[in-house]
Amino acid sequence: MLSKGSLLELYRSLFKPRGVAIIGATPKEGKIGRIVVENLVKAEFKGRIYPVNPKYSEILGLRAYSSVLEVPDPLDVVIVAVPAPIVPKVIEECGKRGVRIAIVLSAGFSEAGRKDLELELLNRARKYDVRIIGPNCAGVVVPSIGFHASFEELMSPGNIAVIGQSGAYITALAAELERRGLGVSAFISYGNRVDLDEELLLRLLLIHEETKVIIYYVEGLRIGMGRRILNTLKEVTMEKPVVIHKAGVMEAGARAVASHTGSLAGTYRLYEAAFKQAGAFIVNDIDLMLDTAHVLLLPINIDLTTSIPVIVTNSGGHGVVIADHLEMLGIRVPELPSDIRYKLKEHLPPHASLSNPIDMLAEATAETYTKVTKLLLSDERIGVIIVVVNPPPFINACEICREVVREWDYSGRIKPIVFYLAGFNIEEAIQYLRKMKIPVTSTHRGIACMVKALYDRCSYLKRCRSRKIKS
Amino acid sequence: MLSKGSLLELYRSLFKPRGVAIIGATPKEGKIGRIVVENLVKAEFKGRIYPVNPKYSEILGLRAYSSVLEVPDPLDVVIVAVPAPIVPKVIEECGKRGVRIAIVLSAGFSEAGRKDLELELLNRARKYDVRIIGPNCAGVVVPSIGFHASFEELMSPGNIAVIGQSGAYITALAAELERRGLGVSAFISYGNRVDLDEELLLRLLLIHEETKVIIYYVEGLRIGMGRRILNTLKEVTMEKPVVIHKAGVMEAGARAVASHTGSLAGTYRLYEAAFKQAGAFIVNDIDLMLDTAHVLLLPINIDLTTSIPVIVTNSGGHGVVIADHLEMLGIRVPELPSDIRYKLKEHLPPHASLSNPIDMLAEATAETYTKVTKLLLSDERIGVIIVVVNPPPFINACEICREVVREWDYSGRIKPIVFYLAGFNIEEAIQYLRKMKIPVTSTHRGIACMVKALYDRCSYLKRCRSRKIKS
Repeated sequence: MLSKGSLLELYRSLFKPRGVAIIGATPKEGKIGRIVVENLVKAEFKGRIYPVNPKYSEILGLRAYSSVLEVPDPLDVVIVAVPAPIVPKVIEECGKRGVRIAIVLSAGFSEAGRKDLELELLNRARKYDVRIIGPNCAGVVVPSIGFHASFEELMSPGNIAVIGQSGAYITALAAELERRGLGVSAFISYGNRVDLDEELLLRLLLIHEETKVIIYYVEGLRIGMGRRILNTLKEVTMEKPVVIHKAGVMEAGARAVASHTGSLAGTYRLYEAAFKQAGAFIVNDIDLMLDTAHVLLLPINIDLTTSIPVIVTNSGGHGVVIADHLEMLGIRVPELPSDIRYKLKEHLPPHASLSNPIDMLAEATAETYTKVTKLLLSDERIGVIIVVVNPPPFINACEICREVVREWDYSGRIKPIVFYLAGFNIEEAIQYLRKMKIPVTSTHRGIACMVKALYDRCSYLKRCRSRKIKS
Repeated sequence: MLSKGSLLELYRSLFKPRGVAIIGATPKEGKIGRIVVENLVKAEFKGRIYPVNPKYSEILGLRAYSSVLEVPDPLDVVIVAVPAPIVPKVIEECGKRGVRIAIVLSAGFSEAGRKDLELELLNRARKYDVRIIGPNCAGVVVPSIGFHASFEELMSPGNIAVIGQSGAYITALAAELERRGLGVSAFISYGNRVDLDEELLLRLLLIHEETKVIIYYVEGLRIGMGRRILNTLKEVTMEKPVVIHKAGVMEAGARAVASHTGSLAGTYRLYEAAFKQAGAFIVNDIDLMLDTAHVLLLPINIDLTTSIPVIVTNSGGHGVVIADHLEMLGIRVPELPSDIRYKLKEHLPPHASLSNPIDMLAEATAETYTKVTKLLLSDERIGVIIVVVNPPPFINACEICREVVREWDYSGRIKPIVFYLAGFNIEEAIQYLRKMKIPVTSTHRGIACMVKALYDRCSYLKRCRSRKIKS
């Protein structure tokens, strides 16, 4: 266990570093030691950048140093991109120089049959009091301060953190978050996880203000780590939602996990139950993880568990299918109270369906959507509003979205709204919603997952609060 | 039951019409009667276009007729876009003029509480021997001949047909097929399904050469139609795969179905079992329907049920998760035979995993992928090849895809290959694969659904053949 003081020290070194050295920096095209320096420059890192390589006095216009021992202050963190055999020596030098964190990108350790080298690395790190992220990892990115300690592409600042052992998997998540206009608050790949592990990272992310939701891809836990991470997870989920994808559900997956990161996949159901009990969300695909994480950025200001979710649609078909998916996830879609139906009647054509889904028929205009949304926003019995738009050629989907969002803003965003868009001519509307950071998806499962996440989060926080009051 | 002769007549009228009249054509902006004429012109319909409206002598540069009775030959089909109350009279005129099919776009029938008007429409149609598609439908599109009898957006020619009662739902499918570069062979929305139903449409699509795969969205069947459609479905699936989304799984969905198209959703499990037994694929979301339909366009030239599916990846994480999803769908991902592992060793770095998934590590180049693919293509024990690419910044994903596809082509495309792409810088590769009409997805579930569909199709055809031999 870390003391609170050293946790804060770690936090500052990783999330607010004032200076970073790149050991193995090089001007050679295509080399990781060059890409990382370039990334830090392009990302406009707010601190100092110190390339380290005895062969050069300057790299990419920056003064280069022959050893980390020569790097001046401030220096909080180093990135290591040298061949595996010399990494232990480099770590020793880092320790002597007083560096507290080394992000080791270099591969060629236990994953390559060199458990001995990994042990050697760990021993030096312990001896010289250096904390290690990696080795064999894709690094760390904190876009809000331009700290791009990774060879992966630049990422925009956001409020969702992604962490995991598999660099590729979490890079895929970061890339999708970028496409969805959400960015990341932090990207942390820890590869072989020789030292700093997800338990500590979760505690750091709990402190990190920009991080509002955490996505965590896990293949397996280190032996003996189970209890510790579950306790931390419980602490974190009371403040920030954590969305987990646990791999290795089945035989082949579990076998592949063992050969991938040497983790024991363990019994999937056991993990699942434990993570759920600790308040985490379990999701098993990239798109659904992102749909879930995104919707959890919305504040939940009403008790969803006692209110009615409503589907507002211009297409009966999509309405039916979304209702199906919601009920498959255990969310009831009951009929609306008769007084609401009565009021809806005023705004809708005579043949619209006033049930739930509210089918406003294809001719529904932005005005129809706005009036119905307004009514639903103002009624206390109504919870999540699911807005479905599949525009016929004579209807502008973007206008509908803009008007509904305006009404939502006007109501103070007390209850959550999510959008399902499908059909032709929806690109502009999707761009608009993404720009406004409003959850939108085009799969029926995705929209149902979003609503389910909101419900589960709401009832979890309620349970936490009632436990607190009792104790 | 239709005689074979009248089935062919119907087929020619709907899929090879020589002339089409638009009753209710108009030059007025934003009106359906204008959009349809515009669409036929823009789609370069190969036959004659006859706008019908007594108020105009010319519409959009085309000679207009005051009544369908005045329209000259050839005239095989009419599109009806006039107010509901005058539709029965129009149908009578169509019958007198000798028109065999009327596509009725007009709404305002049973869905609007006017069951009487719908019955009247049907009675006239029967009396004058006119077959009806609709009413209250989005129409019919056969892009290969520019027959765009719909107000929906233009669609490109392809080999997947989409049919269903819900215009919006199947338009959403068509729009996604367009985005994926696949287009449609036919788009048929039949709304209230007063006459021509899916059973007959399936029989027409069985004849239609361009149609290789059929997607069918169903809310419910007409009473008494069950046995008939299952028999036809069996006939169709022996030639062409049919992918079905049956809505109304749960209580709210079933209730919404009733109010949407007045169908009885029935007991979902009953439908599901019957459809499956008839050889159809049951899928319940848009993206998965399209993934499934697309992969079924691939010819299956080997017995997949007795061969090993292989995951070839540059990312352990994605490999693990795809193996998980495959096994969750009942597809085993066994280890590779030792002689294959031995041969793979030659092409891969020493620390690559030779198990299944084959994890070639992030440094795998197009050359590595090509060599491994070549080996797998040439080995008879190997079935589907799942190529996973999550490119690190120094690897070109598009080059990998091009080289793998070249190798596949060179081998004669005997076994199916599917692609999973994720991460940054994959857009060009996805565009390339789409241009080449090769199945690609970015969800783990999607890729697993694709493989599952290939397996199921293969074992279904095998069962059909063995039944044939026995009987």
